Amino acid sequence: METIASSSAFPPDAFAKDCASRVVLDRIGDRWTVLVVGALADGRLRFSELRTRIEGITPKVMTQTLRALERDGVLTRTVYAEVPPRVEYELTDLGRDLLVPIDAIRHWAEQHASRIVANREVYDR
Amino acid sequence: METIASSSAFPPDAFAKDCASRVVLDRIGDRWTVLVVGALADGRLRFSELRTRIEGITPKVMTQTLRALERDGVLTRTVYAEVPPRVEYELTDLGRDLLVPIDAIRHWAEQHASRIVANREVYDR
Repeated sequence: METIASSSAFPPDAFAKDCASRVVLDRIGDRWTVLVVGALADGRLRFSELRTRIEGITPKVMTQTLRALERDGVLTRTVYAEVPPRVEYELTDLGRDLLVPIDAIRHWAEQHASRIVANREVYDR
Repeated sequence: METIASSSAFPPDAFAKDCASRVVLDRIGDRWTVLVVGALADGRLRFSELRTRIEGITPKVMTQTLRALERDGVLTRTVYAEVPPRVEYELTDLGRDLLVPIDAIRHWAEQHASRIVANREVYDR
């Protein structure tokens, strides 16, 4: 007899409609995820330090992105009982592992940005 | 004298506010871009073949994604004068180059999907 549990034993496949990897793709492909995870590559940072590093991110979007990545287990949030309280964010092992494909995507975007902008201009003419 | 042109001579940096690479990031990090480019890895496909390969994508989203990637120069759209007309999509050299980081992202999502879903369940409790 086939059960729902047995169907989840199939290897994950992002081309399949209900595969959980699609939701993960949405999260890790997000512009701000790429920048937050990339910014934490060299070690833990405070909220204000992240905001300085990632130009133009609003406090609201930063908070949402950090919370989503904490929920996914990509980073940890540590509160130190000081006055004023100090809060630091740091990649987990899972987050360090994510750095590899995320850095590849960011570097590709940086490397090919001008060519893609030029392609768009030609197409729009 | 500093000019706007000279500032664009800086190496692209996705952490900088107005860097064009951020717009490119939005495009290439998109779930449907990852799947369309990945589906074309083995060669050219028709619209209907792409829809079969990428389960659950709507015709509208498929059309928008293909047009955006054509505009970026990532793929070509070739119309053959047949009855009915045959239309095929194929990666350009730029698209083939993009396959490397995009496949890495997709594989990472597939590999870690179950762990991330589990992390979310723990967090939400």
